[in-house]
Amino acid sequence: MNPYLGKNHIGYQVSALGNHVFFGIDPKTNQPFETSFHQATSEEIDLALAKSQEAFDVYRLISIEKRVQFLKGISEKLKANKDLLIQWFCAESGLPQDRAEVEFARSCFQFEYYAQAVETGYALEIKIDSADPDRKPNPKPSLTKFNIPVGPVVVFGASNFPFAYSTLGGDVASALAAGCSVIVKAHAMHPHTSSVSAQFILEAAKEHGMPDGILSHLLAEDFTIGQSLVQDSRVKAVGFTGSIGGGMALQKLINERKEPISLYAEMGSSNPIVALKSALEKRPSEIAKQISASVLLNAGQFCTSPGLLFIEETANFNSFKEELIRAFSQSEIQCMLHPGISKRYFERTKEHAALVEVLYEGKHEGNFIQPTLSETSAAQFFSNPRIQEEIFGSYLTIIKCANETELKRGLALLEGQLTTSLYAETMGETDRFLPVLTAKSGRIILNGVPTGVEVSFAQQHGGPFPSSLNSYFTSVGWDAIKRFQRPVTFQNFSEDFSSKRVDFNENNIFLHFLNGKYH
Amino acid sequence: MNPYLGKNHIGYQVSALGNHVFFGIDPKTNQPFETSFHQATSEEIDLALAKSQEAFDVYRLISIEKRVQFLKGISEKLKANKDLLIQWFCAESGLPQDRAEVEFARSCFQFEYYAQAVETGYALEIKIDSADPDRKPNPKPSLTKFNIPVGPVVVFGASNFPFAYSTLGGDVASALAAGCSVIVKAHAMHPHTSSVSAQFILEAAKEHGMPDGILSHLLAEDFTIGQSLVQDSRVKAVGFTGSIGGGMALQKLINERKEPISLYAEMGSSNPIVALKSALEKRPSEIAKQISASVLLNAGQFCTSPGLLFIEETANFNSFKEELIRAFSQSEIQCMLHPGISKRYFERTKEHAALVEVLYEGKHEGNFIQPTLSETSAAQFFSNPRIQEEIFGSYLTIIKCANETELKRGLALLEGQLTTSLYAETMGETDRFLPVLTAKSGRIILNGVPTGVEVSFAQQHGGPFPSSLNSYFTSVGWDAIKRFQRPVTFQNFSEDFSSKRVDFNENNIFLHFLNGKYH
Repeated sequence: MNPYLGKNHIGYQVSALGNHVFFGIDPKTNQPFETSFHQATSEEIDLALAKSQEAFDVYRLISIEKRVQFLKGISEKLKANKDLLIQWFCAESGLPQDRAEVEFARSCFQFEYYAQAVETGYALEIKIDSADPDRKPNPKPSLTKFNIPVGPVVVFGASNFPFAYSTLGGDVASALAAGCSVIVKAHAMHPHTSSVSAQFILEAAKEHGMPDGILSHLLAEDFTIGQSLVQDSRVKAVGFTGSIGGGMALQKLINERKEPISLYAEMGSSNPIVALKSALEKRPSEIAKQISASVLLNAGQFCTSPGLLFIEETANFNSFKEELIRAFSQSEIQCMLHPGISKRYFERTKEHAALVEVLYEGKHEGNFIQPTLSETSAAQFFSNPRIQEEIFGSYLTIIKCANETELKRGLALLEGQLTTSLYAETMGETDRFLPVLTAKSGRIILNGVPTGVEVSFAQQHGGPFPSSLNSYFTSVGWDAIKRFQRPVTFQNFSEDFSSKRVDFNENNIFLHFLNGKYH
Repeated sequence: MNPYLGKNHIGYQVSALGNHVFFGIDPKTNQPFETSFHQATSEEIDLALAKSQEAFDVYRLISIEKRVQFLKGISEKLKANKDLLIQWFCAESGLPQDRAEVEFARSCFQFEYYAQAVETGYALEIKIDSADPDRKPNPKPSLTKFNIPVGPVVVFGASNFPFAYSTLGGDVASALAAGCSVIVKAHAMHPHTSSVSAQFILEAAKEHGMPDGILSHLLAEDFTIGQSLVQDSRVKAVGFTGSIGGGMALQKLINERKEPISLYAEMGSSNPIVALKSALEKRPSEIAKQISASVLLNAGQFCTSPGLLFIEETANFNSFKEELIRAFSQSEIQCMLHPGISKRYFERTKEHAALVEVLYEGKHEGNFIQPTLSETSAAQFFSNPRIQEEIFGSYLTIIKCANETELKRGLALLEGQLTTSLYAETMGETDRFLPVLTAKSGRIILNGVPTGVEVSFAQQHGGPFPSSLNSYFTSVGWDAIKRFQRPVTFQNFSEDFSSKRVDFNENNIFLHFLNGKYH
């Protein structure tokens, strides 16, 4: 038994002052696990905030080299403790071992990759204007600009990625890479996974001499803990992945602050796929296979799971549809993440079924589901805006359009999306659809599906509202780090002045860059 | 008489449907000019919004080359009509001819310079990940990411820069450079300058074949016009330069929208200057001259005008102070921008005088003022947070500190600033102050004053709250364009697919970049 399980991590200290306890649940059986988890008290929250502020003031001045070593150290620590992490991941999420392995690898990679973004200088966005003392009418000053961390960051763990969008996730990795201290509000549906994750990050932090409070991990079953955190003046940015309702509730709380701060909320999407006539006629089986695999993946519990399929009607449409129905009906039932998610899924699919025609109704049992397929006409879609609203979990609605005009009209009615996909055969077709697709989404996939978000330099995971709250930023890829930074320009810091400075290893980020090491 | 003076510009159409009229005022005499300006009606606002949406949908697909030519064309058009613009600028602002010339040159330069940011590809932030079809376990897709415009933008003209932060200003230039249509809410205190400016931008737009509605210019004396604009669902971003009260009132209105959008508000700052003992002992006259010139410039009506001077007491402090008093008392009285600003200045200086000791009280007459110098002890500053609040106009308060510890404690109490300055002699001193200075500001000036914001690549004009609302962004320099863009990632758009596309000149921004022209 781990001595810290069930307790809050407040920096390097574990704490369980409160009497409000809750339990993790095995979603396959709906039975609770035995450890009681102590919801953080207001005293514990305040201590975490105070430590976070103090740690920030130390961490932001630690050399970039040490920051990079720390981030890489987290990945090593996780790899050395993989079995325990994977075990809790599977037990608490109901997700299969292969998914756990993929997500674990992604989480380790994120710490290493974001370390590289800092190490190479990329994340600092360094810009230099040289002085021109002879310029008329006024001399030009030298300007050097680069990013510094914003301050303590609060991250909300997400239920659907117990590793990659939770305590070991991209928000934590990018905030630490930015130079910020972090307080994680653990998701109540995987408290063991989250606590074990926090413990290993803290072990790495200790080994790398990081300040007490660089990470705190608070347990919470209800909304009040998150509320206290985001409204505290010491917090300077918030990362959230979840529902539109959850994100907007947080934004409302943040709007009440004296000092506005950025909430980086990634709130979900219906991820429409458009299949043009040409493509549907030429390769119906390939398209049906790709789409059904994407919808089926892990019971569709992804922010990028496709929920809408716009098709241009073809002679082979019925056989294409039959192929989708076959794939859906032959799929195994899969466990959803927790009883709350499956309950919501059943409610939403029931609501939605009243608006469309159900072609195949997935079987279900406890928290286990099979995907549901429905269809509707373009006219119905045009007249009922609720049809496009996201259903979290495997559920696909086909919108039958007679021609390109109807397709484009339907796409123009969409709210903002994380992704849209286009199956097309010719460049001309693609050109005709790019204007409406770019207007609606943050990522456009040509002849492919939206699931499987590449953690990469050029990734954009964030789109127009309501898919996210600030579409300039991404929650995946190197640019994710920028969410937790702000630029400062140094004027008149001459090269001569800078070059006299001491060695990088002994110094801090400001001097490091003024030294010209990354010019 | 110009046939459009007094009327709203709704795209290429002039309109004066309303009965609510107001007049420009000569701040030197407080007498109104003769032309009556018609405040925009709700019908006119709605038409401007509809045209802005339509124009956006056209403009965003126009080639980058044409966009660049248009921006450069604006600068040419302005230069050809310089005399008329300068004449109204001086008449309505009370600012001298030399200032008008500098600001005019800056405005023209901004259109040209931001055109370059687009032309060179800088503003598009293009990022490319090549595909790796052989990667295990999954092939890596190709990803190409670049910025596209967000949508129609509303810009509020600022009273203190009738050119450079108004209709010809950086927000308009950067929004047009981003590919957005713009609606300007003119500042009521320079309606002639603003209307003439709009007319010339529109003439350039027409000559370059830009869509009707790419720019609208609405006249408004009261707050309701701005309110209608920022709450309209067609508007996707807002640029504002002005007071903290004004910016926060706009943010409150925006918080009531269904779709949150970014308000880029640059709200002012006390721009503290720190003079260390070493510097004050070595070059008191140089420092006194630089600081007094900066405080005196154009009656201190700049967001970067210094209002606080933290000094470490020295044996020569009294003679340094005498030098400042001499410079302040010997300065000519200068006209403030309008009666509202001078009224507010008198109120604020009176409030402030009750908190500090006034060393020299500036003379005043009508809207004309001389600067005021005051001082206070570190202890007083520590105990009264109101001392640090900005006074718009020439007014400097010296905060006398006994040593570095007091200086740092004072700086740590500061709210967010656009700039801080440091007069220091050694690298060691600078190193010791950088942590607190970076924590508080967006730009740090070594041995120099904050006025004279360089329009340049590496500029940061925006700092922690309340100096601006989102400190990641800047309102000056190439990065200002990013405020009005968002990135989109294109997945699986292969080089082969892209290279077959038609020539750049014939094509739009998406295809242009997919073509690899800027890779």
